[in-house]
Amino acid sequence: MAIREGVFKTIINCFKRHGAETIDTPVFELKETLTGKYGEDAKLIYDLADQGGEILSLRYDLTVPFARYLAMNKISTIKRYHIAKVYRRDNPAMTRGRYREFYQCDFDIAGQYDLMIPDAECVKIVAEILSELNVGDFIIKLNNRLLLDGMFAVCGVPEDKFRTICSAVDKLDKTFWEDVRSEMVDEKGLAPEVADRIGEYVRLNGQLELVEQLMQDEQMMKNKMARQGLEEMKLLLTYCQLFGVLNKVSFDLSLARGLDYYTGVIYEAILTSTAEKAQTDGADKNESVGVGSVAGGGRYDGLVGMFDPKGKKVPCVGVSIGIERLFSIMEAKAEAAEGKVRTTETQVYVASGQKNMLEERMKLCNLLWEGGIKTELSYKKNPKLLNQFQYAEEHGIPFLAIIGEQELKDGVVKVRNTSTREEETFPREKLLDEIRTRVSSS
Amino acid sequence: MAIREGVFKTIINCFKRHGAETIDTPVFELKETLTGKYGEDAKLIYDLADQGGEILSLRYDLTVPFARYLAMNKISTIKRYHIAKVYRRDNPAMTRGRYREFYQCDFDIAGQYDLMIPDAECVKIVAEILSELNVGDFIIKLNNRLLLDGMFAVCGVPEDKFRTICSAVDKLDKTFWEDVRSEMVDEKGLAPEVADRIGEYVRLNGQLELVEQLMQDEQMMKNKMARQGLEEMKLLLTYCQLFGVLNKVSFDLSLARGLDYYTGVIYEAILTSTAEKAQTDGADKNESVGVGSVAGGGRYDGLVGMFDPKGKKVPCVGVSIGIERLFSIMEAKAEAAEGKVRTTETQVYVASGQKNMLEERMKLCNLLWEGGIKTELSYKKNPKLLNQFQYAEEHGIPFLAIIGEQELKDGVVKVRNTSTREEETFPREKLLDEIRTRVSSS
Repeated sequence: MAIREGVFKTIINCFKRHGAETIDTPVFELKETLTGKYGEDAKLIYDLADQGGEILSLRYDLTVPFARYLAMNKISTIKRYHIAKVYRRDNPAMTRGRYREFYQCDFDIAGQYDLMIPDAECVKIVAEILSELNVGDFIIKLNNRLLLDGMFAVCGVPEDKFRTICSAVDKLDKTFWEDVRSEMVDEKGLAPEVADRIGEYVRLNGQLELVEQLMQDEQMMKNKMARQGLEEMKLLLTYCQLFGVLNKVSFDLSLARGLDYYTGVIYEAILTSTAEKAQTDGADKNESVGVGSVAGGGRYDGLVGMFDPKGKKVPCVGVSIGIERLFSIMEAKAEAAEGKVRTTETQVYVASGQKNMLEERMKLCNLLWEGGIKTELSYKKNPKLLNQFQYAEEHGIPFLAIIGEQELKDGVVKVRNTSTREEETFPREKLLDEIRTRVSSS
Repeated sequence: MAIREGVFKTIINCFKRHGAETIDTPVFELKETLTGKYGEDAKLIYDLADQGGEILSLRYDLTVPFARYLAMNKISTIKRYHIAKVYRRDNPAMTRGRYREFYQCDFDIAGQYDLMIPDAECVKIVAEILSELNVGDFIIKLNNRLLLDGMFAVCGVPEDKFRTICSAVDKLDKTFWEDVRSEMVDEKGLAPEVADRIGEYVRLNGQLELVEQLMQDEQMMKNKMARQGLEEMKLLLTYCQLFGVLNKVSFDLSLARGLDYYTGVIYEAILTSTAEKAQTDGADKNESVGVGSVAGGGRYDGLVGMFDPKGKKVPCVGVSIGIERLFSIMEAKAEAAEGKVRTTETQVYVASGQKNMLEERMKLCNLLWEGGIKTELSYKKNPKLLNQFQYAEEHGIPFLAIIGEQELKDGVVKVRNTSTREEETFPREKLLDEIRTRVSSS
């Protein structure tokens, strides 16, 4: 939790720097709210027992509850973040940070705005967070559902197969093109030459020059969706440049994202120091499968309308930070660096080596608490001095404030530095100031 | 949520000042873990549907999961806080801050220590939090289950009726003695003279002088439980004095607390500015029923042992802050004071009154973000200057950074104070420093 608090702080600071407010929604939703939003994954939803009253399920993500909240409260513009737990009846995989109960960490911008401006801010936010957390090199893959659909059309995919072929493309980060191709042809009945045409496109990635290249592709430019997708990508990349994050992004035609509700830009951030291997041809892809992805999202302009009685749409774009994976990485880093992580923030331990000093220790403790100093004392009546020293050392408490008969008589307190073991004596009335100086510089 | 964040901050600061760490436990527990811990209230537990696998329920409080966690991980000393949601299938009462999903905010000290030292720190913590939140006058009622049981024995209550008579006494904060007496006599079969003897005791409240008075009561002192309870109360009140909170506490023999698992000291904090009426004889008690109580807790030395295979006990004492009620109070206060509460912390709004300034606004925004300034911009390509001023005003954003052709040519930025409407112009390279000076002093 101590490490998690640090990660939360960095992320929340970033969200606030971008002007977001936070909202909270209940952990359960009406079952019908979640029905039909997650495709095959719906089997992973936790239901509550029918104990009379509403039929409820535990939330599966934070996006559907957000959309339901906007529709229900008739909110058409908001920039909000929400950090909360979601629930999936999945097979846990602790090492990959996959649990049945886990935090999601979402930032979304709802509202009717000009093209790609909020979309670019989402990219900026992911770049800021991953940079500030110091988790190594990363790349934010960008693509666009309109462009994907246009490309499918150009390649000759029948329209009713767009979504299922999109799901197949989505597996490219986890498996080889050959497997994806055989899924398209053998399982999903696509003509081999259509699959091969898709194969040509999905190996492309780059930046603005790739947009220019595809804009030379006459067939693509004849398709309205592909054209619009390309124009959006051009704008998005231009804005990424203005936000100083062009070196962190890659326009990648293989990025598809599993969820059905995306309607425009899609994102996925991967850590390249761990994911590198997966991109090397011939390497064992399974080794690093899934460990690299640490954020994802996209534009979903239709979801809110599904909850509005009149179908009124509210355009939305957002990202979800894969905070459990970031926790795993930060925990591993902290362990490697220090060995032990402090779980408390105590600054001073009030101690005495003499008997019958409990009341005096309590008074001194109180003085420090009232002065805003994080302070502890032993809950034993007559603890041994050595045990008190040990407690401070084991818990990383930087200072001890020590009293005994003599200190009380002289009106002083001895301050001991836990790590250097140096001791200084101060008049009691100067103690707070002296401690404050020491804790602020330590 | 903006108000809630402020309340959380105050409370967490206090917990950390007292050296507490935080832990997290899952929102669901095995159903059997919760069974038999809550008496009659068990009917309010939310169960999950049986979808195969474990039979689960949503947590009802944070204390039972904490005890289960200690036993499972063989932890025998810890000082922890936990702020999380719990679930009860109850009838919601919004005005009193009673919901089906609500936050609990618990601080507990587990460990074998000397008498009343951690118990007194819990009182100190409640006093600090309620003082810092500025919710008006309050009193922390103190009593002791041992003393209550001893008193019941002295009055002639049969031992198998201790708990049920204790439940009746617990209702004294919500109803008149006459009703409690008739529950004892008519429903629970207590002899009228026994009830009357209890009636004499439960109207007593005071501080150390009441302890002394009861210590003169020969019958009480002959009973081992009553004697120990009184000795603990004396110690607790002495420690409260050392911690400077004696003026905030009242030793109150009518305090009983509903839960079965308490074994020693019990606490309950009430706001006296709202609860005063209920204490006036003859007043309509229903009017202020339940609105006063904002924290409660006590010592529960047997609960952890219920989860240990060998029944190994871990003594615990803790308090739970009634944070939903505090939210209600703080929300009402904030509304009364300001009319509008800021939900974001944005410091600067980047604006322009001219067309085709989007890219320049984005660049300036980026400069401010990189400098750690909380900044927003309009997501419109060519927003009207007046709309941008309005946005800043409505959202309480203190400053605008304005650019146009002229400012770009001159390499300057105009800074406008939203409330005074004063404008100053600074060289672009000095902007960050100037903004930092202004936001830190505003």
